[in-house]
Amino acid sequence: MLAVARPRSAVPSALLPEAPALRHILDARQFDRQWLDTVLFPRAAELQRTPTSRLPSPLRGKRLFYLFYEPSTRTRVSFEMAATLLGASVTGMDSHEHRPEDERLEDRIRVLNEYPYDFLLLRYHEEGGAARAAAVSHVPVINAGDGPGQHPTQALLDTYTLWREFGRLDGLRIALVGDLSYQRSTNSLAYLLSQYTGIQFYLVSPQLLSMRPEVVSHLESRARVEKVRDLHAIADQVDVVYVTRAHSSRFEHAQRFEADAGRYAVDRDVLARLPETARVLHPLPRGPELPPELDDDPRITCFRQAGNGLYIRMALLSLLAAAQ
Amino acid sequence: MLAVARPRSAVPSALLPEAPALRHILDARQFDRQWLDTVLFPRAAELQRTPTSRLPSPLRGKRLFYLFYEPSTRTRVSFEMAATLLGASVTGMDSHEHRPEDERLEDRIRVLNEYPYDFLLLRYHEEGGAARAAAVSHVPVINAGDGPGQHPTQALLDTYTLWREFGRLDGLRIALVGDLSYQRSTNSLAYLLSQYTGIQFYLVSPQLLSMRPEVVSHLESRARVEKVRDLHAIADQVDVVYVTRAHSSRFEHAQRFEADAGRYAVDRDVLARLPETARVLHPLPRGPELPPELDDDPRITCFRQAGNGLYIRMALLSLLAAAQ
Amino acid sequence: MLAVARPRSAVPSALLPEAPALRHILDARQFDRQWLDTVLFPRAAELQRTPTSRLPSPLRGKRLFYLFYEPSTRTRVSFEMAATLLGASVTGMDSHEHRPEDERLEDRIRVLNEYPYDFLLLRYHEEGGAARAAAVSHVPVINAGDGPGQHPTQALLDTYTLWREFGRLDGLRIALVGDLSYQRSTNSLAYLLSQYTGIQFYLVSPQLLSMRPEVVSHLESRARVEKVRDLHAIADQVDVVYVTRAHSSRFEHAQRFEADAGRYAVDRDVLARLPETARVLHPLPRGPELPPELDDDPRITCFRQAGNGLYIRMALLSLLAAAQ
Repeated sequence: MLAVARPRSAVPSALLPEAPALRHILDARQFDRQWLDTVLFPRAAELQRTPTSRLPSPLRGKRLFYLFYEPSTRTRVSFEMAATLLGASVTGMDSHEHRPEDERLEDRIRVLNEYPYDFLLLRYHEEGGAARAAAVSHVPVINAGDGPGQHPTQALLDTYTLWREFGRLDGLRIALVGDLSYQRSTNSLAYLLSQYTGIQFYLVSPQLLSMRPEVVSHLESRARVEKVRDLHAIADQVDVVYVTRAHSSRFEHAQRFEADAGRYAVDRDVLARLPETARVLHPLPRGPELPPELDDDPRITCFRQAGNGLYIRMALLSLLAAAQ
Repeated sequence: MLAVARPRSAVPSALLPEAPALRHILDARQFDRQWLDTVLFPRAAELQRTPTSRLPSPLRGKRLFYLFYEPSTRTRVSFEMAATLLGASVTGMDSHEHRPEDERLEDRIRVLNEYPYDFLLLRYHEEGGAARAAAVSHVPVINAGDGPGQHPTQALLDTYTLWREFGRLDGLRIALVGDLSYQRSTNSLAYLLSQYTGIQFYLVSPQLLSMRPEVVSHLESRARVEKVRDLHAIADQVDVVYVTRAHSSRFEHAQRFEADAGRYAVDRDVLARLPETARVLHPLPRGPELPPELDDDPRITCFRQAGNGLYIRMALLSLLAAAQ
Repeated sequence: MLAVARPRSAVPSALLPEAPALRHILDARQFDRQWLDTVLFPRAAELQRTPTSRLPSPLRGKRLFYLFYEPSTRTRVSFEMAATLLGASVTGMDSHEHRPEDERLEDRIRVLNEYPYDFLLLRYHEEGGAARAAAVSHVPVINAGDGPGQHPTQALLDTYTLWREFGRLDGLRIALVGDLSYQRSTNSLAYLLSQYTGIQFYLVSPQLLSMRPEVVSHLESRARVEKVRDLHAIADQVDVVYVTRAHSSRFEHAQRFEADAGRYAVDRDVLARLPETARVLHPLPRGPELPPELDDDPRITCFRQAGNGLYIRMALLSLLAAAQ
């Protein structure tokens, strides 16, 4: 368990003094389903219903600083937009080259704490970076991904997307597809989803890119889990196909994927078998595992999913601000 | 002809329902001279006359996103300033490294369309990038250069500079000088200028860096065109010397330039022959073809030209906003 | 002497028409101690006492452009925050790769002068860059470091830190420790401090990284100077230890440091000898010469020092704006 504050309940915190307020956003595991269902998702949905020009400004006068040790497009851009739409100003820096003589992460955070920033958005290249930053920071740290570790806001927007698309999460049959070994999106997502009731997971990956045993153990303690070697075999039995990028520059062994890549791709045959009410999610950017020529299929949800990220991040920022 | 909307007339569009509004800015060829002379240039000139602190805010609440696949200084900076001065906010990203596994341009545009941006400013490294983006974008795409292709706002500011400096464009004698083979600034400019009456073009370049045949054919169908191998030979017969960078890192054959570089440079001898009323333009950055020690000559117009870019871009943004 | 305007007096300039207003910030040597003690430092202290939400906006409607030829974290970030807190808007560009065909610095400045920017913040990779920029710029140039040359705002914030911590500068005993050969922070700082009375300098560096002879000569003409080869030997006799990074990627001969690095580090033994009222400063980022495990010692002032940079830069910007 993480030593971070965790909102446990939707009951107003004034009535539940033992429920700590949202302090940092570090790990998908810090959020429980009751808080998602009754606080975060309704807040995001309300923001999503509101015309942009009529949004409230709960972050007026606040300042967000982003510190990115790895490139990002979507995450930085959507947080910047989210903060700006709620009235905050945003600045930051990229620090993509890593040399031994670089400044320690903790020193950077301590210097930033000398300036009047209200939020630090951090993407780090090594697991645990966000927790290290939070340990010294005076202001909330938001984990925008730490290497092969966690990427909690991606997991939250993925879960929110299912909540919006299906109206519920309990009982969903979900195929996690592709490289499940080190993918932070699937790890974080699996942890979040495992809190719901009656989930059936299909883990669809090559042997060499299987989900890490500790994650599988966690899932098995809370849900039904089946390992599958070909998406086609179970396509007619799932509500959700969550497919991730097959060929990542991060892993040398990605090449072992090549021969069987077709087993882990959403092709016409998979779509033909998939129920009409199913949804295909992808965290983007995509590779050949989700061919653009199939984008017209209304079950392909990946762009709507990306758009949902804006509202989840707005909701998170407004909840962090309310707790300050 | 391009499949893009083109403003054809200065008559208010309410009276001319068949005249499509300005939707994207992709290619210099989408603009006709009547629109330049009666809409764009007067609007830019009016903005240029207005003190900065008294500018209108037709873009208030609008958001511009820039997406640059190649570095730029001037274009990004002047668009950012133009948008900001008119009330918009600006953010964006640079994506200068190109790897096979990068996200498709179309996917990026579709994700950006999920966020409430009002304009996308795109610099792409391959010809046709802006048109590809416009084909999927819900909001106006502005081409800030696509590889060896078009760079329409540079051509517009060049033309605007001549309009301001001479009060007219018809009948000008214009030398296009340097590498004319793949230079997007000269290609776009030539297309625009060819719409005016009585233009005399001198194409002054090494044989190996000649203007592309299809561009020459287009010019010859509308103006007098003469190919010249030495700027000195015609310097006393021109109103405008538009000189471009001789040595570009873009082209391996630039080295063939070396021996004869003097023929394509504005040196003291060229200035001595040039009429007193002539103007020397350069899109910057410059190389040895326009030596800084001659900058005191009042006919050297390159910095004023760069400054004009701000007002052309403000005018374009305000016209795009008016059409939304 | 530099050919730059220099404020000489705290007497209101209306009464002292011969005192030129602050025009550029190029070199620590342009500031005299009277102006520091009576204008700059009190202004910074006043800004530091003011709650962020109640700061004045003397830069409202002003625009700062940063142009960085070398990476920076702290300097760019703190200037951006300083300008923003006082009401200005900030934009800029990084230009970290240097190729022969790059645009001349002077051309870039002249183009930027065509846009309505009010301040140019420049970090350049070669000594003298800021002065070259100021020679052609119509608006104030602020030197954010020019290669091995000057870094005046760092020196000003260091001096301000001593002024705040000790209430005075006269009579301080100051050890400058580490690589003193090309460190712009120690050079600039030494020049500033040498204007005060009764300063005792200890120059603590390896032979091969000694302070440049012309800097030493300048100090010796104004203060007591002693060269030392081991910080431990004089730790009990100093008020200030100003320690700089021992291992810089800038200098190949940094490796000669290795064997004796302990002599130039603030370790437990140095702290044990150091007076209770002493202060340890470091411009950051730090290396092993200031181990993080000693940070709890209240005499370690480096983060407070970094924070002071914000207020010195706010004071400088407000003084530049007042002179416009």
